[in-house]
Amino acid sequence: MVVKEYVTYNQPRDQVHKLCQEAAPRILEDFKPQLIIAIGGGGYVPARILRSFLKQPGAPNIPIQAIGLSLYEELPSKHPSGSNTPGAIELPGTKVTRTQWLDLTSLGEMENLVGKRILIVDEVDDTRTTLEYAVKELEKDVETARQKLGGKAEKTVFSIFVLHNKNKEKKGLLPDHMLNENRYLAARTVGDVWICYPWEATDIEEHDEFARKQEPK
Amino acid sequence: MVVKEYVTYNQPRDQVHKLCQEAAPRILEDFKPQLIIAIGGGGYVPARILRSFLKQPGAPNIPIQAIGLSLYEELPSKHPSGSNTPGAIELPGTKVTRTQWLDLTSLGEMENLVGKRILIVDEVDDTRTTLEYAVKELEKDVETARQKLGGKAEKTVFSIFVLHNKNKEKKGLLPDHMLNENRYLAARTVGDVWICYPWEATDIEEHDEFARKQEPK
Repeated sequence: MVVKEYVTYNQPRDQVHKLCQEAAPRILEDFKPQLIIAIGGGGYVPARILRSFLKQPGAPNIPIQAIGLSLYEELPSKHPSGSNTPGAIELPGTKVTRTQWLDLTSLGEMENLVGKRILIVDEVDDTRTTLEYAVKELEKDVETARQKLGGKAEKTVFSIFVLHNKNKEKKGLLPDHMLNENRYLAARTVGDVWICYPWEATDIEEHDEFARKQEPK
Repeated sequence: MVVKEYVTYNQPRDQVHKLCQEAAPRILEDFKPQLIIAIGGGGYVPARILRSFLKQPGAPNIPIQAIGLSLYEELPSKHPSGSNTPGAIELPGTKVTRTQWLDLTSLGEMENLVGKRILIVDEVDDTRTTLEYAVKELEKDVETARQKLGGKAEKTVFSIFVLHNKNKEKKGLLPDHMLNENRYLAARTVGDVWICYPWEATDIEEHDEFARKQEPK
């Protein structure tokens, strides 16, 4: 049986908005990001909310670049509640497909990312496959650019923020230096549950009702 | 005096989530989008929510490409309520800056967009400057691609969805054919008010409280 956990926009418990707010001081202090890379679609909402909390008085907003990585295959299904609300079961896949990557024309050149502090944002760290892909490919791209500059420039430092990390065996690996340097932050660590985000809810009242009925942990 | 309108995620009135839900049947019936282009940062949240409501049983999700267009200059300021909550006044600018454009490598080529139905999503149509820029530049890019293919392929059809349209004199213009063919949809038309979206709120309780106190229109 799949255990579901309902996460709301801003109901009293387990709010996406509040998870971003809570994480912001730690992100500002430890990660000091100069650019956010949102992994879409799931990372769009937390990235946009987080940006509001990372805004410093007098300073411009931290820019967001969106990338699109697709791991899940969708199968049509009944809604988890058994009602006839349309829904979909998402089965974790094993192959990562790029649907969008950084726009180097607007960023100037990849060289502009050399030596920067970059925060990668996604909604959930499930099997870690997508995050592994994102970090590896981004590190590779900026390292190539750094070598082009002669290899003397500072390295780009990537950090990760996710709303939820599932405490389970991971298929993907993050670089040792990232974990050793504590550059991974999950607002909440949960079991191997099915997390239902509000932006996926086709019946938001039902979704919020399920969230209210959940036992506080 | 600037009149403010507070928009919530999913409180009883003026919800972002419900505005997307309400608009979805019309979008599915009239626009039939095959690709969503979200204008970031404001378009990220409505685009992601909307995708859930546009999902058809058995069909894959409609892909989202994010573009970044920046029009507003930010000035540091006190929070509108007069409290010490950090906030920012955003003044409309006149120059559109691209911070991200379509990723043609992942899209295949621009040719892949020829003959497609594309929905452009943003949160607000204020002076229309950003939307004018987006439509003009996107139409130009796909028309160039269509000409490359010999000019016989069907034209790409762009539609627009915004949460709010401000009923005011516009500086930007949309193509006549877009308005004539009714390919513009605003979930709500409001006066020339300052719309406060929930993802901009650094104090979400205060924000929701202001929303509750607003007079129903």
